Amino acid sequence: MALAPQPPPDAQPPASGERALVRRLGQILAAGMPTTPGSVPFGDDLAPIPGQPQLLWSTDMILDGVDFDSTKHDWHSIGRKALAVNLSDCAAMATKPLAALIALGIHERLGPAVAETIVRAAAELGDNYECPVVGGDTNAWSGPTTISVTVIAKAAFGVRPVRRAGARPGDSIWVTGPLGGSLLGRHLWFQPRVREALEIGRRLHPHAMIDISDGFAIDLSRILEASGVGAVVDRLAIERLVHADAEALAAESAKEPWEHALNDGEDFELLLTLPPHAPLATCRELGLQRVGVITDRPGELLLDFAGRRTPLPVQGWEYFR
Amino acid sequence: MALAPQPPPDAQPPASGERALVRRLGQILAAGMPTTPGSVPFGDDLAPIPGQPQLLWSTDMILDGVDFDSTKHDWHSIGRKALAVNLSDCAAMATKPLAALIALGIHERLGPAVAETIVRAAAELGDNYECPVVGGDTNAWSGPTTISVTVIAKAAFGVRPVRRAGARPGDSIWVTGPLGGSLLGRHLWFQPRVREALEIGRRLHPHAMIDISDGFAIDLSRILEASGVGAVVDRLAIERLVHADAEALAAESAKEPWEHALNDGEDFELLLTLPPHAPLATCRELGLQRVGVITDRPGELLLDFAGRRTPLPVQGWEYFR
Repeated sequence: MALAPQPPPDAQPPASGERALVRRLGQILAAGMPTTPGSVPFGDDLAPIPGQPQLLWSTDMILDGVDFDSTKHDWHSIGRKALAVNLSDCAAMATKPLAALIALGIHERLGPAVAETIVRAAAELGDNYECPVVGGDTNAWSGPTTISVTVIAKAAFGVRPVRRAGARPGDSIWVTGPLGGSLLGRHLWFQPRVREALEIGRRLHPHAMIDISDGFAIDLSRILEASGVGAVVDRLAIERLVHADAEALAAESAKEPWEHALNDGEDFELLLTLPPHAPLATCRELGLQRVGVITDRPGELLLDFAGRRTPLPVQGWEYFR
Repeated sequence: MALAPQPPPDAQPPASGERALVRRLGQILAAGMPTTPGSVPFGDDLAPIPGQPQLLWSTDMILDGVDFDSTKHDWHSIGRKALAVNLSDCAAMATKPLAALIALGIHERLGPAVAETIVRAAAELGDNYECPVVGGDTNAWSGPTTISVTVIAKAAFGVRPVRRAGARPGDSIWVTGPLGGSLLGRHLWFQPRVREALEIGRRLHPHAMIDISDGFAIDLSRILEASGVGAVVDRLAIERLVHADAEALAAESAKEPWEHALNDGEDFELLLTLPPHAPLATCRELGLQRVGVITDRPGELLLDFAGRRTPLPVQGWEYFR
């Protein structure tokens, strides 16, 4: 989920493409939003529900040919992914998924068995995450298959939902696991970091968090934008985080493995910022890896390589580029 | 929304096409559902949320070429309808909509202005119904445009959510307004009967209720199936309920106006059953029209015309026929 009510335009730097659209849509929504005392404010992976301060929710649509490819991927993996991307949104805010709904637009020549496989796969994953799929909507049409899942989540006991907007200058930047090359298969079969997120929330009280859905650099830039800060990312740290899949992709692409780690989408690891004196032993125990630092220069994202700093271009998945 | 956890197969008569699929999907979901004390059971327009007995939710996907036609309809009307069908689900159970999420898959040649128009239209309708659109997801793809809306609703003070499963032999059957011919435009611009439903719930305590989305006959048959009862519908009463649009359509189709009233989809009026001694003055005050009676013959749906009873074929909108 990316579309959420936004502050008015004068508080925002200019942007183009998908991000500008999302911001405009968010402003349209903000105009109609009641202010709900106690609820989480706007612009995050999950949206608030008026009058229900403990609950948050999110919707994500996945589309054949964009988020999956029905000529290559099996329907079980696709149905699993439809829920998994939503569970990852719950993880992004360190909340506990409660239940999900699934809506299907199935290509008409596929027939009902495909609908069954998709729903069963989502329900099985939901069962593993104590997030039952409790209903939905099924349709057939002449278009490619589309699946939309909505998830509702609850603030876990003692864990305040973590927003994108809380990063502060001096915070350290951390990632939960290796990055890049998810296209080789992990984008379908990733494990949403729900349990890890709750542990992180409970033990480390992160200032800001997001799941890496569109790419490390673009998702970090979303934290920077929401928080009004900048960042310096350490290229050597990113090189230590390169996934074997990124190495494999780099062997055929014109890019370095660390470029794949920075810019490939759908890792679905968590990206978070911690206050300066975060307990390192706990970070290590939770498998977190440090990749950079937050600065007081709004919107400035730099890549540090042995002391030399260069602008880090934000390249990740965007619609309407 | 039609897909919801269902009782096991031995409790169900056989069925084919979409209804059989929906039932199988419901059985898959039921296998993974926790039993939530106090929550509304399964098989209705809204689904329960485990651990949140006062809340219900629903998702509905609308698709270009099926539920709307972007070559004929404007995007504002389409965006409005995307939320309206969900508000109608809230009305079907006499619940109060709280908030909505909207997910878009926009055809890529349309561009961001169309996304804005759709979201604005949904947000405006939501504002009229005190149901703000609080977030969503926006995507572009090469397929036709698809819009998926999820709505969360709350049991209104003093009004128990009305299920499909409560109809009893001897109940009278009522409808909130004229039927048929919605294709001429009402299917886009209907007013979801949310306020009417709350009044009906508060003052008449209906045994069962549904919104007429796929057609009077098929939606009545859903109440019959869920409740394990039959019904006799009075053709003269249906003739009094024929909408002017149904007359207009009948002038060109090979059908009678009352056949349009019985079988056309997307009227989005409410269809409900009341106990035998319901106060007629209140029914009249609320604009309800009586159309038949519930019988003790499970699944038997008859049309009465001046004392002669014939089987009423269930013809309405179904996928996977």
